[in-house]
Amino acid sequence: MSRITIAVDAMGGDHAPEEVVKGAIWAIQEADDIEVILVGQEGLIRPLIENTTGLSLEIVNASQVIEMSDAPAEAIRSKKDSSIKVAMELVKGGKAQGVFSAGNSGATLATAMFTLGRLKGVERPALAGIIPTLKGHAVVIDVGGMVDCKPSHLLQFAVMGHVFAKYILNIPEPKVALLNIGEEPTKGNEVVKKTHALLQKSFLNFVGNVEGKDILPHKADVIICDGFVGNVALKLGEGVIESLVELIRKEVKQSIMAKLGLFLVKNQLRAVFQRLDYSEYGGAPLLGVNGTVIVGHGRSEAKAVKNGIKMAANFVKQDVNAHLAKGLKEHEELIMGSSWRKITEKIKEVVGQ
Amino acid sequence: MSRITIAVDAMGGDHAPEEVVKGAIWAIQEADDIEVILVGQEGLIRPLIENTTGLSLEIVNASQVIEMSDAPAEAIRSKKDSSIKVAMELVKGGKAQGVFSAGNSGATLATAMFTLGRLKGVERPALAGIIPTLKGHAVVIDVGGMVDCKPSHLLQFAVMGHVFAKYILNIPEPKVALLNIGEEPTKGNEVVKKTHALLQKSFLNFVGNVEGKDILPHKADVIICDGFVGNVALKLGEGVIESLVELIRKEVKQSIMAKLGLFLVKNQLRAVFQRLDYSEYGGAPLLGVNGTVIVGHGRSEAKAVKNGIKMAANFVKQDVNAHLAKGLKEHEELIMGSSWRKITEKIKEVVGQ
Repeated sequence: MSRITIAVDAMGGDHAPEEVVKGAIWAIQEADDIEVILVGQEGLIRPLIENTTGLSLEIVNASQVIEMSDAPAEAIRSKKDSSIKVAMELVKGGKAQGVFSAGNSGATLATAMFTLGRLKGVERPALAGIIPTLKGHAVVIDVGGMVDCKPSHLLQFAVMGHVFAKYILNIPEPKVALLNIGEEPTKGNEVVKKTHALLQKSFLNFVGNVEGKDILPHKADVIICDGFVGNVALKLGEGVIESLVELIRKEVKQSIMAKLGLFLVKNQLRAVFQRLDYSEYGGAPLLGVNGTVIVGHGRSEAKAVKNGIKMAANFVKQDVNAHLAKGLKEHEELIMGSSWRKITEKIKEVVGQ
Repeated sequence: MSRITIAVDAMGGDHAPEEVVKGAIWAIQEADDIEVILVGQEGLIRPLIENTTGLSLEIVNASQVIEMSDAPAEAIRSKKDSSIKVAMELVKGGKAQGVFSAGNSGATLATAMFTLGRLKGVERPALAGIIPTLKGHAVVIDVGGMVDCKPSHLLQFAVMGHVFAKYILNIPEPKVALLNIGEEPTKGNEVVKKTHALLQKSFLNFVGNVEGKDILPHKADVIICDGFVGNVALKLGEGVIESLVELIRKEVKQSIMAKLGLFLVKNQLRAVFQRLDYSEYGGAPLLGVNGTVIVGHGRSEAKAVKNGIKMAANFVKQDVNAHLAKGLKEHEELIMGSSWRKITEKIKEVVGQ
């Protein structure tokens, strides 16, 4: 059995380094074939792994920390020895096969793109959110703020989302849908209408448009959208759930009978909110970079970290990037036909530039 | 006291004509100064108003009905005597001052724009959604599918949302915010970044960017977005609430204690979901057309219809359209500076074309 090494940003996230290290230890204990390199300030990390002799765990020092509140561009410039950067370098240098970070996600995305580069055939990497639905989990891509997307970008997102859903979520023939404001192909803005036409010509199992209300009832396994829309929608969904919980708490406080009622029903409510919990999959994969990068939620506790690391290892094991490259290759003509940059590249290639 | 006549599309909505007529009668009973013209198939409506002699209620016949499932463009072409169209004509002809319809919203919007035209200074009318929040209600504009908006359009939405919040929601100095994927002015897509700069120069109380999660906690009174984003976000929010309710029901069914608990807490839960209910304001105003048009939710029952009609009357009473025109006039230079079409118009005006 070949072992897989994941570089874990031990300084990233609201509960770093304690919960991150706990999650890393947990992952190794659960999976024999995972090794972890904890990247960060050794003085802080060392005491947390005191009683772990025998586990496949090592530390690589990184002197700087990019804080959650740092502006990504500025932080990347000024903090060359950050745990995020050092973790990516480990993958680039072949010492690790994947990275997990629950830290500043903007900085993680940018560092991954600069350090690892893009997979062949990818114009723009994208972050795929894994959303709990009424029937399982769905992939929403992009949720990483890839804004001003062209139809060719969205087609690439669709191919990448399809591959991820197939090989990591184990959905044999994922239903791919376009997030839109109506079901008819004529609905939407210019980019979405053109994307609809492209997706219809793709080799994917394209099921047409879905609306915002169709995501949780799981009308499709993979939902394609521009990063602006994906980000706003996801955060709105989180906000609605949090607001509901707050409203219910406030309302119930005013009545003893209601308090008793809430007590009796609390296990069931907890089960529902656990279903909607992000931590089951532990993170969002950054698809289209030349390496494996899983971005954890800033609030990740040990369980989410553990699951994120395991997802990174599985991503490597399933050779998702090879499948991505293959899927993109199969759609090359369709993508090229809709992308001038690609056409220019092709011409340069042909004339031997 | 001058009386205000509202033309009500009696055939529009899932519960038409019964609930619509009930709502109309209720509105007149509550407000002395409202008269209603019920527009639709007289044979169906007449029996519903049998015992209402003395009320300011009349019927204007319209032989056709645009169904909820009809494609708006096609329906408008083929159904020239639809209740929606006849209602708009009543406003255009001065027989009514406003329209309320809970019918096919695409057809209502399009008919309003074609029949009534735009207010001076408006490039694109927009639909303003009134969203219940933790602290009251907020206006999200556009939620009507006005896609591919330019910065100048979004600035106009902001002015219109401000005026509506001030004169109808009675918020003296409404906080206006831009829906975005981060708080910093540098965040977002090209259109949103340019809009941010415009809004900073506006005379509005612009409080910067808000994210999807900030809407329900009421970080702003007026939230500006492209109709694509607004539509996806709103429908997602609805979907999340519906899915939560379904999940809780399913989970609770499995335990007698939990059922008892839910019973004890049900008044509180009902209060919470009532708070999030759309029917308090009864409808979404279409802002920027030369008339008063309130678009009801397709599911509207009598209470929502009543409140929608009252909102239409209040819109007329407060002379919102005069305030809209004034607000747009004040921002004319800013809007023109960012809109080539406007500049072309101005040039034509100056050279006397």
